[in-house]
Amino acid sequence: MNRLLIVTALVLSAAASADEGMWTFNNFPSAKVKKASGFAPSQAWLDDVRLSSARLAGGCSASFVSPDGLVLTNHHCARRCIDELSTAKTNFIANGFYAKTLADELRCPAVEVNQLLDITDVTERVTRATRGLSGEAFEAAQKAELAKIEKECAQGDEVRCDVVTLYQGGQYQLYRYARFQDVRLVFAPEEAIAFFGGDPDNFEFPRYDLDVSFLRVYKDGKPAKTDHYFRWSKAGAAEGELTFVSGNPGKTSRLDTIAELEYARDWALPERLMYLAELRGLLMGFQKRGPEQTRISNNVKFGVENSLKALRGRREALVDPTLFAQKVAEEKALQSKVNQNPRRKKLYGTAWAEIEKAVEQEKNIRKELTWLERSAGTGSDLFRIARTLLRASEELPKPNAERLQEYTDARLPSLKQSLFSPAPIYPELETELVAFYLEKLRQVLGPDHPAVKAVLGKESPEALAKKVVAGTKLADVKQRQALFDGGAKAVAASGDPMIDLVRRLDPAARAVRKQYEDQIESVMRKNAELIARARFELYGTSVYPDATFSPRLSYGSVKGYVEDGKPVPPFTRMGGTFERATGEEPFALPKSWLAAKTKLNLDTPMNFVTTNDIIGGNSGSPVINKNAEIVGLIFDGNIQSLGGEYGFDEKTNRAVAVHSAAILEALRTIYGADRLVKEIGGAK
Amino acid sequence: MNRLLIVTALVLSAAASADEGMWTFNNFPSAKVKKASGFAPSQAWLDDVRLSSARLAGGCSASFVSPDGLVLTNHHCARRCIDELSTAKTNFIANGFYAKTLADELRCPAVEVNQLLDITDVTERVTRATRGLSGEAFEAAQKAELAKIEKECAQGDEVRCDVVTLYQGGQYQLYRYARFQDVRLVFAPEEAIAFFGGDPDNFEFPRYDLDVSFLRVYKDGKPAKTDHYFRWSKAGAAEGELTFVSGNPGKTSRLDTIAELEYARDWALPERLMYLAELRGLLMGFQKRGPEQTRISNNVKFGVENSLKALRGRREALVDPTLFAQKVAEEKALQSKVNQNPRRKKLYGTAWAEIEKAVEQEKNIRKELTWLERSAGTGSDLFRIARTLLRASEELPKPNAERLQEYTDARLPSLKQSLFSPAPIYPELETELVAFYLEKLRQVLGPDHPAVKAVLGKESPEALAKKVVAGTKLADVKQRQALFDGGAKAVAASGDPMIDLVRRLDPAARAVRKQYEDQIESVMRKNAELIARARFELYGTSVYPDATFSPRLSYGSVKGYVEDGKPVPPFTRMGGTFERATGEEPFALPKSWLAAKTKLNLDTPMNFVTTNDIIGGNSGSPVINKNAEIVGLIFDGNIQSLGGEYGFDEKTNRAVAVHSAAILEALRTIYGADRLVKEIGGAK
Repeated sequence: MNRLLIVTALVLSAAASADEGMWTFNNFPSAKVKKASGFAPSQAWLDDVRLSSARLAGGCSASFVSPDGLVLTNHHCARRCIDELSTAKTNFIANGFYAKTLADELRCPAVEVNQLLDITDVTERVTRATRGLSGEAFEAAQKAELAKIEKECAQGDEVRCDVVTLYQGGQYQLYRYARFQDVRLVFAPEEAIAFFGGDPDNFEFPRYDLDVSFLRVYKDGKPAKTDHYFRWSKAGAAEGELTFVSGNPGKTSRLDTIAELEYARDWALPERLMYLAELRGLLMGFQKRGPEQTRISNNVKFGVENSLKALRGRREALVDPTLFAQKVAEEKALQSKVNQNPRRKKLYGTAWAEIEKAVEQEKNIRKELTWLERSAGTGSDLFRIARTLLRASEELPKPNAERLQEYTDARLPSLKQSLFSPAPIYPELETELVAFYLEKLRQVLGPDHPAVKAVLGKESPEALAKKVVAGTKLADVKQRQALFDGGAKAVAASGDPMIDLVRRLDPAARAVRKQYEDQIESVMRKNAELIARARFELYGTSVYPDATFSPRLSYGSVKGYVEDGKPVPPFTRMGGTFERATGEEPFALPKSWLAAKTKLNLDTPMNFVTTNDIIGGNSGSPVINKNAEIVGLIFDGNIQSLGGEYGFDEKTNRAVAVHSAAILEALRTIYGADRLVKEIGGAK
Repeated sequence: MNRLLIVTALVLSAAASADEGMWTFNNFPSAKVKKASGFAPSQAWLDDVRLSSARLAGGCSASFVSPDGLVLTNHHCARRCIDELSTAKTNFIANGFYAKTLADELRCPAVEVNQLLDITDVTERVTRATRGLSGEAFEAAQKAELAKIEKECAQGDEVRCDVVTLYQGGQYQLYRYARFQDVRLVFAPEEAIAFFGGDPDNFEFPRYDLDVSFLRVYKDGKPAKTDHYFRWSKAGAAEGELTFVSGNPGKTSRLDTIAELEYARDWALPERLMYLAELRGLLMGFQKRGPEQTRISNNVKFGVENSLKALRGRREALVDPTLFAQKVAEEKALQSKVNQNPRRKKLYGTAWAEIEKAVEQEKNIRKELTWLERSAGTGSDLFRIARTLLRASEELPKPNAERLQEYTDARLPSLKQSLFSPAPIYPELETELVAFYLEKLRQVLGPDHPAVKAVLGKESPEALAKKVVAGTKLADVKQRQALFDGGAKAVAASGDPMIDLVRRLDPAARAVRKQYEDQIESVMRKNAELIARARFELYGTSVYPDATFSPRLSYGSVKGYVEDGKPVPPFTRMGGTFERATGEEPFALPKSWLAAKTKLNLDTPMNFVTTNDIIGGNSGSPVINKNAEIVGLIFDGNIQSLGGEYGFDEKTNRAVAVHSAAILEALRTIYGADRLVKEIGGAK
């Protein structure tokens, strides 16, 4: 495990070596890239790349690839939309989708696209608001200030403003995005090729997936014009070529303290993994009821399996004693430097111990925090809707600064899009998920826990789940709208059994959340800020912050690696896809591919790997060359990259992408998607 | 966590404090018990208790409670038999069972009862056989010697001989048992009261379970006469009373090295827990298909849930940093003592490092070892039968000493009982389990693993599972008998698809097992022997060995404890059972109890706790007083006792038992089981 040598280099010498780093657009190490590759991205280049890139607010990355708002992302990033637009009959997941004309493009029920317009530093303002405060007062003051800043910035529904916490509180920056909520589906291949190899091949390489989809953002009912967009590369990625990945890595924990890492290793990850494994088993059992049950639960199952594999990789990275010893050494080195200087010792010296105490408290309330608040409902849409309606009716009458964060004014457009999504809701699956949730709640907290008694009474989890799902009217969007508009009075009068269930849980759920925010989160934030400041003082700012699901740019190159002593070449070819096919799911190719085989150039590169430093959230990121042309589309990392949560090892960590040539070849030869090919400039 | 202070005392001062210890019958600390309680068990007392106690070979404990072979154990220990004797119509699990006359007693398909006749030390013989050997040669020589000793001792099917490895190889002792394979069901209450509170209340206290069943051992078609048996106490257990528990604790790891504990903590336990959680989810999904599916899978589900909770407790004990630091300190102290003496250093000094290397190797092959060999089939009976037939046809022609251990002559009676069990096999459940197994195999080893390719070919796990379960004839006992008798030729000619599946896996399965035994297990055994000898030299033999599913005696007393600052009294009452009932499973009382409520003495003690040191395998153990009378029946430990795998904390670790008075009151007043009441001497 050489991973940590590099992390050490990063923290101790304050300079990431090799291709490491998920850099912010306003602190990109152009000089370093020039030194390594001869090319130094200019400010104009960086601005163009930033504006040509996009975020899918639900958790993915994307890019603009035409002046008419055409968006390139992964199939699995649009999967929910494709699924929600499907019926048992059309089944666009199984059959794929292609809008032959603009008029055929279908609006996604709940997709939001963000384009980063500018970044403003608000560190001084945020830290001033909490100066001298701690605990509940710190939490309240910081939340209020963040809500205020975001509200002042956001104009209508078309601008979205998020204060992003960078360097664990070392910086607070205001990210202002253009927001698009009218997003339509243009093209998606069959899932059989988008996710060829399925869960067994997920996070593996060599790989053969056309994990691609095209969306389009609309404004006032027409395709939105985009001044900035990526052109399609003629040649596509070549071995050794310099590559940039522009995307939104979700979360890394590379700067976490040892106490936080131990908590993740010993408690948070194992318990989450057991929960996900159980849910996977349940869904496998559910799917055996029939093809329709399979169809309606595949989206949830994909998410569960993907998380399972990713978190398993994280856990395994943390139990690697070499990595952990290195992390311990880094923390000790920083502490020792802090303690050498009396001023620093006084300012920062107790921060680690404070965080450790907060972590210990979190451990004590973790079961309640997880099962009453964070994982409540275990994925049930109706539960989520009921809770949103109930809480909205209580939160919205409060002043903006005092609300739960997700109910503040700047967050309402996203909340409403999700709440009023016309996506279908399936009672059979909902019953299963609510019953599972209630059963877990009782199992984990015990049948004698007051909240469990309050919600279950003398009923069994299964019987109660059946009753509330059968009785609720919340599948009806108009009903939701009426309750949202009617506020607390309407919600109280509704007598809706799902809302009643949520209401019985909510006092305990809110209480444990408040306890967490006031006594734990506030302590962690305050002290993480202190450690970040110590780091800046000692190592400067030439490092990158942990990922925060905000736009980042990484650089690297197309490069194979060595696994179990054998070289893994950087490319696969379209022909290899046919060789790997068995005819049985998940290794069954769609008919369209089998029919087109003889017409295809089987030598076309299919997937490839690069040394770019990415993580979950980067799905759908464009891979571009120094001319800012699309040469590929990130859709995965290899299994070795899963420890990337805690550090980066250039030797074996690889980003996995669809090759730009494979996308073009498939669009042209398999799907006859001429309109699309022309739009992205790929016509021959 | 004070648990480890006591473990320290044990290892460092070579004397278990308090009531700790699962003592062998030939090394019981009578003097120590006398010092604590005033009563010193005599050799005659110990012999009588040993011969009055019994082991259920499938993994439980029991006792003789009449001169006519009547056996007392837990409901959950007889659960499989009760289940296998049931049909959808009779459903003895749901409805309970009582044989009004001797002729009504039903033979269990596959229960074996063992009574320990005597113990002979064979340490010298076993260690002489391996002197100077290592690796494969060590393994082969030891296996051969064990097979030889056991074969020389075993006479016919009615005597069973096991060489038991005590103190991690510090002692080898030959345990000679009377073996009873004709075991019949006499009485079982409804599961609703036997397992009242179900999984939520499992490993909890206060508790309200009548987890009781009665069996009877037969010889030549008649009840076997037993000279030694326990009488029923008139008063039952009282607070503060001295109690003994005689049973067969399955496995503890209190003397394991740090390398072994780390492996359990970081790899073995988390991976096992994820597997069990997923299987639980799958079974929950399966049970939703209907009541019959629920009935036929409940036994598997109970086992899975029980293991899940127990192993979760173990994992949590190991991630407790206090406990682990203590374990590390103990090991260092022992190593330091060893290294102080040049002779000891030379003899024993490298043992820990050798074990660590072996553990590292085990980690590398753990996936194959688990999924090709140890967990192969994930509980499918047909898979197990097919593998047994295939391997028996290959192993039995070999000389006894060269066979896989479970095929040696002394083990054949148990193997045959299991192989030819007439218990029903349910194709729907079998298909589910085999499909799950094949899917896990592919998921864990990857679709490109040669063994996965060999077994799956181009088929999907589900399709293949359906095919082999539908096509196999192995559900038919006569077919199995014919293939077993016909040997390799008959097995090869059978064309049975389940045997074919097993055959495709077997070369890889055998290879990884051989690698484990020759290169890993042999190293661990050899070096564990060395550490054990060092321990004996330095601390003497006044300690108890780790549990090995062989008869042990522990002492303690009836005593409450403190939980979350509140005292937990040692007794519950029958009346409390009615108070806890909700009418919904698993808190629904059976009709018999509701009907009898007014006739019951609700003040009768129901369950109680003692300080006896027990662990899984002790289920069904009698709790006796100093007069060797039954005062209770062990059926569980409290949640705090789950860390007992690694150490014992008298403050909070408690054994949970059914009170002898509750058993009598229920038999008399609820079940009208007069014949049984009379036989155990409980008639008024």
